[in-house]
Amino acid sequence: MIAVVLIGTGNVAQNLFQVLATNPDVDIRQVIGRKKAHLNFALGTTKVATDLKEILPADVYILAISDEAIPLVSKEIEGIKGLVVHTSGGTSLASINNHTRCGVFYPLQTFTKGKMISFEAIPLCIEAKQSQDLQLLKKLGVALSKTVVEIDSEKRKALHLAAVFVNNFTNYLYSVAEDICEENEVDFNLLKPLMKETVAKLDDLTPLKAQTGPAKRGDQKTLHTHLSLIKNKQQRDIYTLLSNTIKSTYGEKL
Amino acid sequence: MIAVVLIGTGNVAQNLFQVLATNPDVDIRQVIGRKKAHLNFALGTTKVATDLKEILPADVYILAISDEAIPLVSKEIEGIKGLVVHTSGGTSLASINNHTRCGVFYPLQTFTKGKMISFEAIPLCIEAKQSQDLQLLKKLGVALSKTVVEIDSEKRKALHLAAVFVNNFTNYLYSVAEDICEENEVDFNLLKPLMKETVAKLDDLTPLKAQTGPAKRGDQKTLHTHLSLIKNKQQRDIYTLLSNTIKSTYGEKL
Repeated sequence: MIAVVLIGTGNVAQNLFQVLATNPDVDIRQVIGRKKAHLNFALGTTKVATDLKEILPADVYILAISDEAIPLVSKEIEGIKGLVVHTSGGTSLASINNHTRCGVFYPLQTFTKGKMISFEAIPLCIEAKQSQDLQLLKKLGVALSKTVVEIDSEKRKALHLAAVFVNNFTNYLYSVAEDICEENEVDFNLLKPLMKETVAKLDDLTPLKAQTGPAKRGDQKTLHTHLSLIKNKQQRDIYTLLSNTIKSTYGEKL
Repeated sequence: MIAVVLIGTGNVAQNLFQVLATNPDVDIRQVIGRKKAHLNFALGTTKVATDLKEILPADVYILAISDEAIPLVSKEIEGIKGLVVHTSGGTSLASINNHTRCGVFYPLQTFTKGKMISFEAIPLCIEAKQSQDLQLLKKLGVALSKTVVEIDSEKRKALHLAAVFVNNFTNYLYSVAEDICEENEVDFNLLKPLMKETVAKLDDLTPLKAQTGPAKRGDQKTLHTHLSLIKNKQQRDIYTLLSNTIKSTYGEKL
């Protein structure tokens, strides 16, 4: 049984809480958040506190908080007994190095408030200053997910960057597509099976091999027709840059 | 029973063949392709031909061929009895207007050679010059898919443009992410659950509401760290343009 104190009340914290609170190998001792109203999700299941001074003893303290808050909270709980970890992809282990026992417990996923998703399929990227703490995080990890991998701070930063491309940027392209659909009075939902298959294809092919479309074919006619359809300058810039980059990857320039 | 002749041997043709050949409401009369070797997929199930002069009578002739070939093939079969349709998102109905009975039968999906996918979930966008032909395409459509929608050439062009954003461009971003993973020796597969959830989220949220990440938060520190990690100039340009566009959508400039 691993005793855990969870610090934070955002999307990651709430998703972690759900999976920790229902796991037989985990004893969730307490949830700490600055605002009482934000702790509602944990009420009735475990103890809650708004003051870090009231923190209870545990094996692992999980800081599921914003990147900026990590070093601040880490300092506030300096000297505590147990392993202190953060959950951030873009933050190094060094940011909580004031603890002799520190680590990282990064769930590589996008979390949405109010939408609980299964942790089983979420890769958990772990790192720890001390090897016995790595074992502890591995134990905690495998209790929650089928994929637990040791990733150091440098590699995690690269993974986080790659995640920005496949999640944040991809979502923005969806947003542009929705704009185009709205302007032209077509239903954005018609694109959803295509969006799903675009990802599903990669179970069998690399993205390099899966590439299709007018830019890859060097189909100038379609490229120019498309550009003439886009009214928004930023969207035209995105269309041009991505098409040119695809063309230069597969052939000549637009 | 709808009698169909299929012209073409590419990914769309092969996927259409699979679903047409096994559908009880469809009688697939013939498949025509320029090269005999490319017709293997249809052998033993239906008649095949390499010469358009040997085309058999049918209710619907489906031109599942490249955009450039559409007007050429349409001209070669001029005067034929029955409805002639193409399957292209970016090509107008006018391109085959030499037929008094012409239409469009556009499956909004990405097709991969050798990977057969279920048609049931694929939106079929139909258009026809004559209203009774629209009824015929609707009948053919509902035999194959749960989603059949009437979309005119202008709207279909916009939908095709939006499809480029959600499919071609998104896939290219996956490709960049794979590059970053390889350079930093992390496993690209770790990102796949995130890629799937990025799409799945949109069952509940609009992309505008689903947007997260450093650009949206205006997190300069992470944006600069990321830029310093990207060695390839084109990838840096993509990172900068998309981040700036997200920032200007949600706040100020990078």
